[in-house]
Amino acid sequence: MPKMIDFQTDPSRYRHWRVEYAGDIATLYMDVDENGGLFEGYQLKLNSYDLGVDIELADVVQRMRFEHPEVKVVILRSGKDNVFCAGANIRMLGGATHAHKVNFCKFTNETRNTFEAAELDSGQKYICAVRGACAGGGYELALACNYIMLTDDSVSTVALPEVPLLAVLPGTGGLTRVTDKRKVRRDLADVFCTIEEGVKGKRALDWRLVDEVVANSKFDEAVASRAREFADASKKAPAAKGIELKPLARSFAEDGSVTYSLVEVVVDRAARKATITLAGPDGGAPASLDDLVAQGCESYLLRLARELDDALLHLRLNEMELGLLVFRSQGDPALVTAHEQALLANREHWLANEILSYWKRVLKRIDMTSRSLVALVENGSCFAGVLAEILFSVDRSYMMQGEFDGDNRPVATITLGGTNFGRYPMSNDLSRLETRFLDDAVAIDAIRAKMGETLDADAANALGLVTFVFDDIDWDDEIRIFMEERASFSPDAMVGMEANLRFAGPETMETRIFGRLTAWQNWIFQRPNAVGETGALKRYGTGVRGDYNMQRV
Amino acid sequence: MPKMIDFQTDPSRYRHWRVEYAGDIATLYMDVDENGGLFEGYQLKLNSYDLGVDIELADVVQRMRFEHPEVKVVILRSGKDNVFCAGANIRMLGGATHAHKVNFCKFTNETRNTFEAAELDSGQKYICAVRGACAGGGYELALACNYIMLTDDSVSTVALPEVPLLAVLPGTGGLTRVTDKRKVRRDLADVFCTIEEGVKGKRALDWRLVDEVVANSKFDEAVASRAREFADASKKAPAAKGIELKPLARSFAEDGSVTYSLVEVVVDRAARKATITLAGPDGGAPASLDDLVAQGCESYLLRLARELDDALLHLRLNEMELGLLVFRSQGDPALVTAHEQALLANREHWLANEILSYWKRVLKRIDMTSRSLVALVENGSCFAGVLAEILFSVDRSYMMQGEFDGDNRPVATITLGGTNFGRYPMSNDLSRLETRFLDDAVAIDAIRAKMGETLDADAANALGLVTFVFDDIDWDDEIRIFMEERASFSPDAMVGMEANLRFAGPETMETRIFGRLTAWQNWIFQRPNAVGETGALKRYGTGVRGDYNMQRV
Repeated sequence: MPKMIDFQTDPSRYRHWRVEYAGDIATLYMDVDENGGLFEGYQLKLNSYDLGVDIELADVVQRMRFEHPEVKVVILRSGKDNVFCAGANIRMLGGATHAHKVNFCKFTNETRNTFEAAELDSGQKYICAVRGACAGGGYELALACNYIMLTDDSVSTVALPEVPLLAVLPGTGGLTRVTDKRKVRRDLADVFCTIEEGVKGKRALDWRLVDEVVANSKFDEAVASRAREFADASKKAPAAKGIELKPLARSFAEDGSVTYSLVEVVVDRAARKATITLAGPDGGAPASLDDLVAQGCESYLLRLARELDDALLHLRLNEMELGLLVFRSQGDPALVTAHEQALLANREHWLANEILSYWKRVLKRIDMTSRSLVALVENGSCFAGVLAEILFSVDRSYMMQGEFDGDNRPVATITLGGTNFGRYPMSNDLSRLETRFLDDAVAIDAIRAKMGETLDADAANALGLVTFVFDDIDWDDEIRIFMEERASFSPDAMVGMEANLRFAGPETMETRIFGRLTAWQNWIFQRPNAVGETGALKRYGTGVRGDYNMQRV
Repeated sequence: MPKMIDFQTDPSRYRHWRVEYAGDIATLYMDVDENGGLFEGYQLKLNSYDLGVDIELADVVQRMRFEHPEVKVVILRSGKDNVFCAGANIRMLGGATHAHKVNFCKFTNETRNTFEAAELDSGQKYICAVRGACAGGGYELALACNYIMLTDDSVSTVALPEVPLLAVLPGTGGLTRVTDKRKVRRDLADVFCTIEEGVKGKRALDWRLVDEVVANSKFDEAVASRAREFADASKKAPAAKGIELKPLARSFAEDGSVTYSLVEVVVDRAARKATITLAGPDGGAPASLDDLVAQGCESYLLRLARELDDALLHLRLNEMELGLLVFRSQGDPALVTAHEQALLANREHWLANEILSYWKRVLKRIDMTSRSLVALVENGSCFAGVLAEILFSVDRSYMMQGEFDGDNRPVATITLGGTNFGRYPMSNDLSRLETRFLDDAVAIDAIRAKMGETLDADAANALGLVTFVFDDIDWDDEIRIFMEERASFSPDAMVGMEANLRFAGPETMETRIFGRLTAWQNWIFQRPNAVGETGALKRYGTGVRGDYNMQRV
């Protein structure tokens, strides 16, 4: 799969989705163009999807929040007769590399999570209106919505047929959401997950697989009425008009480096690393809410979030051999703080809330990025507030200590704000500082006492905010040795180690999806029973069942 | 690895461990016989271990609780100079099948957990006294102890060198206990897990890797004094004398079936299933505590637990193609209840407490058994109290409804006792009923209201205690169809599905070890970077580093 995957799109380019807006209710139609696959070799029949379909969906959900803040309820429906969605395209999965499959699943998981985040963070609720077969990834789409309505007829079913049909898991949250979100009894879940043809009607309701079952003749009316009811009950902040998310300014160099307006990604292929430098603001914070709205997608923190998000996705899917991501920043920390404070001061306003909530998602995207992550806190850097959060997302951080010969930038500092204590929770629902100092309230209190202060290397080190500090004499060597060493380790061992060390403490549905469920799915995605020549994924569609080694592990 | 692995042993047969008893303090020496490997092809140098070493260790821990209840503190030490323990034997791992590796790790994990359970359930505390190199699985042994003391000299280190050295994870709880039990800061954990040579002295203490660092010259004295202190502070129930755990009565048939005194395992190789039938008591409960102690290991619930535990381990390691375990029982439910009540009434007594706590471990062993588990509640069965707990451990249960033609056994019933509401928590720290009815207090209250009543199929079904009930007409066909279908699915998909559906709700360190950590380790155990011909596990000891595919997944 050599083709570069582009995560930027806009409604004028959609091939698979369309949205009808009607006041505070939007209807999102999934109508996949079967000839619109991202790669050759498969057709997206029966509303099945590949990464390209999901990139558009992620764009829809994102624009719904920024461009259509008036929307309180989104109804997800199929644009096709008799089928809701057949799930991820099996021929695509059968032909994809392991790394692509894994990253495809991760991105679709993140996108499903944005459905739930839309209600939690902005009061934008997703209803799923299922008519026709809703299977596998199709039902996982429904599960990500917070209310599922099912047509009561002979063809409308919900199903997770992955296990019996494909010898893989419903790995886009399916198993976890069935038990943990919908609270389906575990033995009924076991039955459900082994029934190829799925469950329909009253049984689907009795087993808690859907929230409502409605006769076909009354379905549209019932959906409309339920949407109206939810919209009326919504606590969403009022918003007359959204802002436009314009195309990102972005250019690619020959060597793979990428330049955005505020983010620069420098690729060093020999060292297997990408260095991501974030620029601080070039001006002061918006003076007023009107200013913020007028700046729209050009406002500093929104622009930075969009660019960083795009860079992360690009690196994940298109640059799989760059095992080390190095985060740097350069700019005025006071200006970063001022921009963040301007949002916080207006957090009841829909746009300020959306930008802050978007940062929550982008920071989670960093946490979930399966690369070794390191931050360098250098002279001239601006790790303040939301940007300081990156220091607690990465696996390690190194900070310059004192003056460096010939370097006339301001000495390295870190500045924490109130947002570092809970505004951007990780998937485990703890702040990154809480995760870092698990059960150590004393350490966190000591840090809180320094909120707003400019902390130099010694202060940051004493508080445990960085991993190591080095002075002018040691810095270059220490950083070089670390990076060389890291790049020499087995990437697989890094995946497993980082996935375990990053998420200490409690677990949530979200961490379970990315941890337990994904890890087992990835294991299965390596097993001959699924992906071997006689495995179920390869044989799908041939009429011949997979030939399994029956040894149980 | 065709040889049958036997989980039964006793001190007269130990090759790798010895225990010195001195009043309320025992010292456990790890002194592995390098020629005592379970299989050919490797030597257990430097106190490295294989499954055989761990089977002895599990026996030590078990006997410590039943045969030596006077012990309040166990000091774990090395019997060798200059090395504490080098961890799991790498040549053994390099040569083992995937299924053996996975089951080896699971059993060692369960055994590590018994260290922690000994303190939690019985007040028997494990101290680890480390002198010499303590690496990989060696340090994971230490992490399972609740207090780690390290000699402060040039050779005594703690290390998790798996990632840099072997391209696999410290998968026996290491990564999880470092962050979640010892609360090592995640970035320091990241550093620690990439340092081949490990960490010693003050840094080990500063990073919370150990609890105490003591100069070599004062080490023995300090260990003795700390053990004395913990023993004096122990709240362990007083016990003058233990009971002997005599060898199990057990015979193997030609076809692989196993007969114990109360447990029968019938193997049906063509159907890929083993049917495990548990017999009810052949007499009333012990009339008094003296009776219970006099019966010793012959008392019904202890004997049943030991036999069932052995049968599960045998099936796991020696019968990997039997993908379906069917649980049955036959006997008088009132007698089962009477036996359990006799223990409950005396739960302050050390032996009653030990038997109840052992059932907690055996039931967890069922939960963690990676086979499709089903229970058949037939006429004449005795699923009461602790045995009813099995119904909530399995993936599905089927219950006979009403009279069956020509069957003059009592109709099938289920009886719940107080123990079903929390005495035997799962690894997620919820009762099995709480896990089954996650957040549905109404359902659990309705069940609690029926405590002690004899519930027939309709009553059990109405309360959601069984998956399906079938009458005489449907029973045989339904059971047959289910079993045939289950046996036809990919075993790998079953592993992943069951591992996800069984553990809804909150997670604990224990579930994270068996879920997230193990799943990632199993994934890595499939990857060429670890197990391929040029992978790190295969090349270990050759002086040539693993040749890695550097694509990051």
